[in-house]
This record gives sequence, C-alpha cells and structure tokens, in this order.
Amino acid sequence: MTIGVRRRMGVEERRQQLIGVALELFSRRSPDEVSIDEIASAAGISRPLVYHYFPGKLSLYEAALQRASDDLAARFVEPHEGPLGARLLRVMRRYFDFVDEHGPGFSALMRGGPAVGSSTTNALVDSVRQAAYVQILSHLGVTDPPARLELVVRSWISLAESTALIWLDGRRIPRAELEAQLVNDFAALVAVSAAYDEQLAALLRRMVEDEPADGPFADLAGRLVALAS
Amino acid sequence: MTIGVRRRMGVEERRQQLIGVALELFSRRSPDEVSIDEIASAAGISRPLVYHYFPGKLSLYEAALQRASDDLAARFVEPHEGPLGARLLRVMRRYFDFVDEHGPGFSALMRGGPAVGSSTTNALVDSVRQAAYVQILSHLGVTDPPARLELVVRSWISLAESTALIWLDGRRIPRAELEAQLVNDFAALVAVSAAYDEQLAALLRRMVEDEPADGPFADLAGRLVALAS
Repeated sequence: MTIGVRRRMGVEERRQQLIGVALELFSRRSPDEVSIDEIASAAGISRPLVYHYFPGKLSLYEAALQRASDDLAARFVEPHEGPLGARLLRVMRRYFDFVDEHGPGFSALMRGGPAVGSSTTNALVDSVRQAAYVQILSHLGVTDPPARLELVVRSWISLAESTALIWLDGRRIPRAELEAQLVNDFAALVAVSAAYDEQLAALLRRMVEDEPADGPFADLAGRLVALAS
Repeated sequence: MTIGVRRRMGVEERRQQLIGVALELFSRRSPDEVSIDEIASAAGISRPLVYHYFPGKLSLYEAALQRASDDLAARFVEPHEGPLGARLLRVMRRYFDFVDEHGPGFSALMRGGPAVGSSTTNALVDSVRQAAYVQILSHLGVTDPPARLELVVRSWISLAESTALIWLDGRRIPRAELEAQLVNDFAALVAVSAAYDEQLAALLRRMVEDEPADGPFADLAGRLVALAS
C-alpha cells in the first residue's frame, strides 16, 4: 500500500483497492470496530471519497465479504485425483489457512450480530456452504444425493465451521490436528449413517476403495479397533 | 385463550400472557412476518396496550425467546441414572420435540437475519448452547474438560443444531432416526478424538462401560465391524 503517493485511479480500480483495504481491516478486527475513517486513512484517501464509491460501511463490508467468499469457495476446488481422504485433507488445510488469515472477521461473521447480519451477508455465507457442498458431492461422484447423504454432508460442513470457530478461540489445539480430525470426522459420520442405510454403505465402500493401506483412514480404523478391544 | 372476555389482569400476569401469545406466533412463522397488531389481536387487547408493556416488537421477541430458551435448557436436564447412550437419546427426543413445536421460529433464529440478530438474541442462543455443554460434561463426570473434549462436545452441539435445521427443511428423514443418529454421532466423534488422545480414550472407555451389550452403541459397533469386513 503506497500511502502519500497519490496517483489517479480509475473508478473500478479504486473500488477494488478500497475493498482490499477494507477486507484486511474487517479480517483483523471485529467489523463493528472498524470505522470508515480508518478505511479512508488506510487507503490514503478522504472520508467523503470513500462515500463516493460506497454509500456506507455496510455496502463496503458486503463487497469485502463477497471477495472473501469467492476466495474461500475457490479454495474448495480440488483436482479429482488420488484418494478422497488426501483430497479432503488438502482442502481442510486451505480452509484453515483462510480462517487463520481472517480470524476475527470470520468469528464476528459466523457468530452473527447486528453489524454483520444483513440478508446479503447471510446469503454470502450460505453461498460458501453451498459451494463446499457441491464440491464434496462432485468428489463423491454423486449428482442426485439421497436425503441422508445431503444431511451428512451439510451437517459435517457446519461441524467444520464450529471446529474452526472453537480453534480461533484460544488456538489451544494445533490446527494440523484439527484438519486431520475433520477428515476423520467426515468418514465417521458417513460410517454412522452407512451402518443403517444401504445406499450410504455402498458409497462408503466406494470412498474407501482407493484409500491406501497406510493412509489416514486405515490408521484411524486400526486405532479404533485397538481402542475397542 | 379467551378472546372477548376481558377481565383485569395484573401487570406481570398481562406481560406473561403477552409473552405466551407472542411466543406461539413467533414459533409458527418467521418472526419477521409477525406484527404487533397480530399479537394484540391474538391477546385480545389493543395495540397501544401492547406498547404499554413492551416498547417494541424486538423487546417482546426477546422476552419470548427468553422463555423458549429457559424451556429448552430445562429439557437438557436428565437424571444421572442408567447408561449414557439412553440418557442422551431421551434428551435428543425432548430436543426434537422443542424443534418440532417451534419450527419456523427456530429456523429463523438459527439462520440469523436482521430481525432476529440482536446481541440479546445471540446471547440467549449462546446461553442455551452453554446449558447443553454443562449438562453433557456433568453426565460425563468431567469438571475441568481438556481442550479436545471441549471441542468435541461443543462441535457436536452445533452438529445437533444443523441436523435439526436440515430436518425442519422438508422433514425428509423420520426424526426418531435422527435422534438416534445424533447419539451415535456423539460416540463416533468422541471415538475419532480418542483414537489419537489418551485422555479421551480413557473417557470413552468409562462412557461405554455401563452400556448394555444389546444397547445402541453395541449395535452400532457391530454394524460398523460388519461394514468394514
């Protein structure tokens, strides 16, 4: 950011710069605590000029959240190659990278509150969840999910959110452990449903088919068997 | 509700009646869609009289939510007797009773939005989560939970919330199945953590110690073993 060196920017360029500056501030502190004055100062422009591009703080917040949502959704995209567990683990790493980069803003958004709970922000949060859901189904090779599979995938996504939020609150557990744990949780939740549903049982068999014998799922299964005996 | 037959109520009695009427309306439809006029009419009093007791819709909504929160938190209380799985299943039944009774209001609240996202409503939602957390720890006999146990319990609570919300959206899976599934999910998530943590492994052993050989956990374990082979 070059503050002081003012050059003329085009309208769209200036908007994009403001969104970037705002996103950084909204990520590092609760959005309630970030003022337009601060954003103007960080962008090296006057407060009235900020209002020239965005009618108010909420619209700038929504634009910043749109950029963050696009960024996060893009991190869910993973090549359809190799064992499923390893793919999901790579996605979990990128997810925690994102959570790490945007910690306070992520917490404030996901915990809700007057400053962040507009219908636009809720729609953006839902769009990210939907992007995650669509990606997972595509890796499972399912186009028309039965209700029980939809439930497992969507509820696991909320488990991943809450795990990330709890991690942010004090960071008392190494994130690498939680990334691996969420992959295992996914397998475990599918298995619980598969124990009582033949369609999910067939899916689980396909899921673990390509898992290496020394991979994380085999390791988990071995440990669980040891624990049970 | 006796509409038409007006008798003089005391201030507190009238407040409690209004809260009850409002809670019923806020439960059956999204709170956005419920007007003060409607509440007044359902309570058999004039609109100005509602404002005499509550300064606005938000304060009445908050009072109704307070009552619903107290009600839900009370349903988490379960005698410390018998196998843990059966206790948790009874709590899950009461939880789904509550969700069933308050469906649209529960969805609107948990999905967030401008009408329901005040700091008071967020604090009430958090207080219910905390009540669930405290109850679960007490049944596990843990007073000073390690970080990994806290994470499992709190993230499972959010899994229960999202499972209930997904159930409400179309009710495509019988609720009795989901009540049992959430009990199994709890055991599965503890087991995943216990596979990599000695403290949680010891807790899991204590948890299943009192489980009957023909109980739900034994059934699940048997099915998972069958699935794995």
